[in-house]
Formats: sequence, C-alpha cells, structure tokens
Amino acid sequence: MALAVAEGAKQVKGMKVAVKKVDQTTNEDLLDADGVIVGSPTYYGLMSGKIKMFFDGSVEIHGKLAGKVGAAFTNSGGTASGAETTLLSILKAMLVHGMIVQGRYDDKHYGIAAVGELNKKEIEMCKGLGKRTAELVLKVRR
Amino acid sequence: MALAVAEGAKQVKGMKVAVKKVDQTTNEDLLDADGVIVGSPTYYGLMSGKIKMFFDGSVEIHGKLAGKVGAAFTNSGGTASGAETTLLSILKAMLVHGMIVQGRYDDKHYGIAAVGELNKKEIEMCKGLGKRTAELVLKVRR
Amino acid sequence: MALAVAEGAKQVKGMKVAVKKVDQTTNEDLLDADGVIVGSPTYYGLMSGKIKMFFDGSVEIHGKLAGKVGAAFTNSGGTASGAETTLLSILKAMLVHGMIVQGRYDDKHYGIAAVGELNKKEIEMCKGLGKRTAELVLKVRR
Amino acid sequence: MALAVAEGAKQVKGMKVAVKKVDQTTNEDLLDADGVIVGSPTYYGLMSGKIKMFFDGSVEIHGKLAGKVGAAFTNSGGTASGAETTLLSILKAMLVHGMIVQGRYDDKHYGIAAVGELNKKEIEMCKGLGKRTAELVLKVRR
Repeated sequence: MALAVAEGAKQVKGMKVAVKKVDQTTNEDLLDADGVIVGSPTYYGLMSGKIKMFFDGSVEIHGKLAGKVGAAFTNSGGTASGAETTLLSILKAMLVHGMIVQGRYDDKHYGIAAVGELNKKEIEMCKGLGKRTAELVLKVRR
Repeated sequence: MALAVAEGAKQVKGMKVAVKKVDQTTNEDLLDADGVIVGSPTYYGLMSGKIKMFFDGSVEIHGKLAGKVGAAFTNSGGTASGAETTLLSILKAMLVHGMIVQGRYDDKHYGIAAVGELNKKEIEMCKGLGKRTAELVLKVRR
Repeated sequence: MALAVAEGAKQVKGMKVAVKKVDQTTNEDLLDADGVIVGSPTYYGLMSGKIKMFFDGSVEIHGKLAGKVGAAFTNSGGTASGAETTLLSILKAMLVHGMIVQGRYDDKHYGIAAVGELNKKEIEMCKGLGKRTAELVLKVRR
Repeated sequence: MALAVAEGAKQVKGMKVAVKKVDQTTNEDLLDADGVIVGSPTYYGLMSGKIKMFFDGSVEIHGKLAGKVGAAFTNSGGTASGAETTLLSILKAMLVHGMIVQGRYDDKHYGIAAVGELNKKEIEMCKGLGKRTAELVLKVRR
C-alpha cells in the first residue's frame, strides 16, 4: 500500500517522496516533511503499538508539526473489523499535533482501508490518497 | 436486519422481544426494556439524525437506563465507509446513559455491519448479536 | 461561542463571515462557503440530533463540499463528559464530505470545548479557532 | 488513580483485586481475571504506546477474554485534550476482545479522567469506577 501511495504522491509535480518503515523514521524526518502519510495494520481497532510508540516519541517536537498535512491507510483482516477506528486513531494523533487532514467523499472516507492482498481498485485508491495529500501539501505550504 | 436480530434474541429462553421503528418508540419503551438494540443506516459516519433526535429526547429519563444492556447494528453503502463509526456513535450514546455494551472478538467487533442486501452469513451474525445481547441481559438483570 | 469564532475569522483580511442558526442554514449556504465551522451542544457524546438532521440533508450535495475547510466547537455540562466525542462527530461528518480539518496542538485539540458560561481564555480560544480556520481557507481555496 | 480504583473494587464482597504495572502484567494475568481495568496517560489522544504494545501482544489469547468485564481511566494535562478519546481507545480494544464495558451516566461517561493531581471528588470517582466494575463482574461471571 505504501508504494502505491508514494506513486500517487509523486504524480504531483515537484513533490519529493520518501517511503520509510517506522523503525527507520525519526522526528527529524517529520520536521523535514510538509506532509506525512502513516500506514498501520489494524490491531485492536487502533494503530499498532509500534507506531503509537513513534507518535509518543514525537512529543519532543510537539507544536512543530502544526500546519503540516497528514493522512492514513491501513490493512485489516476483514470489513467492519476495526479498520475505520485504526485510521481515525492515526488522524486523531495528527490532529493533536495540530496537523491538517482531509476526508474522501467517495467511500473509504477516513483514509484507505484494504483487506489482505490489494486488488486493482485498492491500488488506485492508494495512489489517489497519495496524490490528493500531495496536492493539499502544495496548497498549504505556501 | 432487525428481524434477524430479534429472532436471535428470542432463542434465549424467557426473553420477550419487540421490534419497533424509531417513530413508534417512546421513552417508556426504553424504561420497560432490560436491553435495547438500535439499528441505524450509516449516514455521515454516524447514526441517522432521526435516531439521534430520539436519543436527545431520552434525556428526560437520563440516569434511569443505567445498567441496562445495549447493542447496535447498521447497514452501509460500502466497506470502511462509516459503518464502524456509526456503530460506535450508538454505543457512545448508550455509554453516556450508563448502559452496558459488549464487543465481539470475531470480526464486526462493535456491532453488526452489513452492506446492502443481507447474505446468509450476515443474517447469522445478526441472529448472533440478538442472542448474545439477550444472554447478557439475563445475567445482568438479576 | 459562535460570535467569538466569527470575530476571530473576521480578523483575516478579505474574509466574509456569516453566523447562522442551523434552522436558517441551507445546502446553498454550504455550497457558497469556502469554510464551515459548526457548533453544537454536547448531547449524548455527539452533535445534537437537529444538527445531524442538517448533515443528513446535505447528502443532496454530497461530493460538492470536498476540499472545503471545516471546524467544530461545543459547549458541555462538564469535562470528559462527551465534548471531545461531540467535536469528533462533527469532524467525522466533514471528513465523509471530503472536507479538510485541522487540529490544535495546544490543548482543545479537536475543536474548542467550553463548559457553561465562557471565560476570557475560552473566548480567546474561540477567536483563535475562527482565525486559524479562516487562514486555512485562504490557503486552500487558491 | 489505580490505588483508588482498586480500593473501590475491594469494597465489593468476595472480590480479589491486584494492581499491576503494565510491564509486570502478562497474558496469563488477563486470563485469570474476570475483569480488567486499564489506566493510561493521555498521549496523543490515545492510550500510551506501551499499553498498546501490551494489547497487541494479547492477540495470542484472542477470543479467550470474551465476556470478561473491562473499564478504563486516564490522567491528562487538561480538559478536552484527548482524555475521552484515550478512554475510548482502551474501551475499543476491549470490545475487539469481545469484552463487556459499562458507561457512567453522571459525567465522565467513558471512564474516569483526571487532570494532574487528584482532588477528593476524583478519588471518589475512581473508587466508584472500581466498585461499579467489580459489581458488574459479579453479575456477569455467574
């Protein structure tokens, strides 16, 4: 999913995109970025503990992410099995940072949720998430 | 969905079950019941305004539903399209009333969500919701 | 609260601001606006049924609010008494519309929540919400 | 807060209560308990990463906590600053486990939230949470 999201973001002219695992990501990375798209498995209706640990650690730069753009995607074991609340757990953490997030009016409103292996439509939705978020970055960072 | 939920609840010995449209339901009905299962369409990621109006009107009996059992189901136009947050909007209103709710460990954790016409599996899940909720009523009301 | 929010929004140069009760607001008003800030009492941990009815009615213009900016405020009877979930119920409905929302890193993360009569600090926070939202409108609508 | 919650739970006759830090708690502890009350600081509007890691680890006993009783408390830096969503993040994880949770009709609906040092009223509310949860355990475990 992350690769498809990145591919979509790169379609926006002038956008530099990096894909990182949470272990390889630092607070500096967050500070350097104008937008951050976080993907997580659906674990107990929320982002994974590992990603939450990363958000907890970002308290050291609290206030400095305000006005940046955020978005979320997840992969879950089924439908109505916590995917929405996982996406919203990420968006809430971003809102606590003062970040800007956007919904999607056409299904998958809170971010992209896929079940298991991606089908074509889901790959396109991931690309769309990347593109839309990158476009919002362009507008907001001026 | 409501009929399948009711059928499941009736499987529990001694359980009296009534199915009512929100327009026909009164605060007296809530007071008389040991358990309440609310179904709503998924409208803007929340229970419908009509059902919310009903909850707002229940403020007249606020405090008197504490300890009763609640549950929720919804029908939505797609997956990850607000069904989970709709179910949770109902559960939250029930928690504000001091009510008792239970999750489901096997998929559809917050209540039953179906998409459009029900298939067999979804009908069984609705029955299961009714049965499980009725069983909890039996335990709690003693 | 609405008046303070509006006052804050008006501080942004070139911003035209209208304050309307939900009964007086139409889908046309939503279409005409570049940003919408919704205030609701905290009723059962969610926006009021009346405001939810308004959101339900906005389905007629579904898709046409995408990319507009939204924000929320509420007034509740106490702390940890549903104010946060009320604010988030509004933000969720806006996300389902494809709208853009921003958090606040310094307390009151999801919107402004006041308890009963406003004190000076809360009035300033309301103004801040209006100003910040109007500034985001300026950036986004270009 | 944990000590006050435990004191309240002990007021229920025949109830055995243990207070444990998350580091000292195992999946066996969860299996042995008829009820689990989880406290967390309010970190980015959700339970802490450390506690989320613990929930993620509980996947090994997934399904075996169904029907047990759960509850939550938190301590935050302010009002409307993520306390409610932190409590609900815990309740959601419990619902995904199939557990039973109860709201409170009189303020602090989703669990007990305190700000910094506890005052007398908050200590009483913590005791009340412990007592109420223990009473529900008694009813449900029969």
